[in-house]
Amino acid sequence: MLSNNKLKYLKSLQVKKYRTLENKIVIEGSRIISEAIIQKAKFDFIYISNKHKDKKSTNVFLKQIDKYNIPYSFEDDKKINEISLTENSQGYIALVSVKNIFNDNLENFGDKILLLDEISDPGNLGTIIRTCAWFGVKSILLTNNSSDVFNPKCIRSSMGGIFYINNLKYLSHRQCIDFLNNTKNKVYCTDMNSKNLNLENINKKWILILGSESHGVNKDIQIGEKITIPNIGKMESLNVSVACGIILNRLIK
Amino acid sequence: MLSNNKLKYLKSLQVKKYRTLENKIVIEGSRIISEAIIQKAKFDFIYISNKHKDKKSTNVFLKQIDKYNIPYSFEDDKKINEISLTENSQGYIALVSVKNIFNDNLENFGDKILLLDEISDPGNLGTIIRTCAWFGVKSILLTNNSSDVFNPKCIRSSMGGIFYINNLKYLSHRQCIDFLNNTKNKVYCTDMNSKNLNLENINKKWILILGSESHGVNKDIQIGEKITIPNIGKMESLNVSVACGIILNRLIK
Repeated sequence: MLSNNKLKYLKSLQVKKYRTLENKIVIEGSRIISEAIIQKAKFDFIYISNKHKDKKSTNVFLKQIDKYNIPYSFEDDKKINEISLTENSQGYIALVSVKNIFNDNLENFGDKILLLDEISDPGNLGTIIRTCAWFGVKSILLTNNSSDVFNPKCIRSSMGGIFYINNLKYLSHRQCIDFLNNTKNKVYCTDMNSKNLNLENINKKWILILGSESHGVNKDIQIGEKITIPNIGKMESLNVSVACGIILNRLIK
Repeated sequence: MLSNNKLKYLKSLQVKKYRTLENKIVIEGSRIISEAIIQKAKFDFIYISNKHKDKKSTNVFLKQIDKYNIPYSFEDDKKINEISLTENSQGYIALVSVKNIFNDNLENFGDKILLLDEISDPGNLGTIIRTCAWFGVKSILLTNNSSDVFNPKCIRSSMGGIFYINNLKYLSHRQCIDFLNNTKNKVYCTDMNSKNLNLENINKKWILILGSESHGVNKDIQIGEKITIPNIGKMESLNVSVACGIILNRLIK
């Protein structure tokens, strides 16, 4: 049973400091949990609301949990709601260990790398990660002032995509510059005032740099070939995760 | 000055029933308000937090407001916060009249039309509208069970893009079927289990149908050529607004 201490502990993981200290996160919802199971995330425990007991859909879910030998319990719906960060909790909560789930050796990042500069909105970051998972991009670099990938909002909008990423590292701008100057990959840097991606001549080994919606990529890491997305309408900007999807679709044919 | 009655009135417009009754909406943030001004939205009034008084950025904003003769006042920051739906209010609130801002005569919808089926998340809907505004798509149809385009979350994530849309109408599935069966435009319908868009042979006059992330397009309106976005990774789904951006980028060259 979910003790008050455990409840407190799970709630504490909403705060970055405690997540980092414990190397644990809480994830919510059957779909995200299922994706994490498929990706062999390390589960400590799954808590399921009593309201799901004896439901057909729950049985399917439990079979999946059993297959991977993940411990679980049914809990009072009120307790599940207390941990949940969504208004209408789905009733599925899991405690997951994230120690060393990412490789952070830059030499292993390969030839399809996304570099995110100051993406501070966790919802956008999560959608970007989900898009990477869709397109098979498994290496992500983030500047230090970006949002935490384990922020609950980010995990939610990544729809479990975070567990598809192999290589992930936070870097200072100085480290980014060093990395970009020494890579053998072609560097593409998004910039509102540049030309479209040259579709005839796309390099198969690349690093794509995306910046924040309000400021774009910071000047000091504006390195490589500048590219943009053709603007036919009159709006000033695209959502950054939409921009990411459009460019990845072009880079990965 | 912002009276208590006015305050109550502005807050009531968070609810769809009152928005529909009054044909008024509240929009927030200097960037969204600026986009709305550029697009000649009909402003009743702009309320600015006292905290912005005598700021340089405010002066630029005020010049824009003055140019279009929009009445405004500075108000107590607490009152602005009371109306605001964001955690950290930017301090700019506007009351806008939306009576007849959209043309709903289907004959005028032209040859680039987006049909949204059951898009219930207002954030996604707003990002889709922002993407339409970027790509110059000015006609949107929505099935009746979709989110309200004037939902505050939708307006916020549309970043003012809603004011770029000329033609908009909510339809029943029956009306959708009639419209789709009688259009001269090529109909493209997104479907997870279909082929990629045939890039060699894209029709310049089209209707694009997008469905909800969980269920896709409802069966009865799965009309026209089915298309999908190539899935290289292992994720089950893309965010619907990202999918919208990727396909629009392909349809509009």
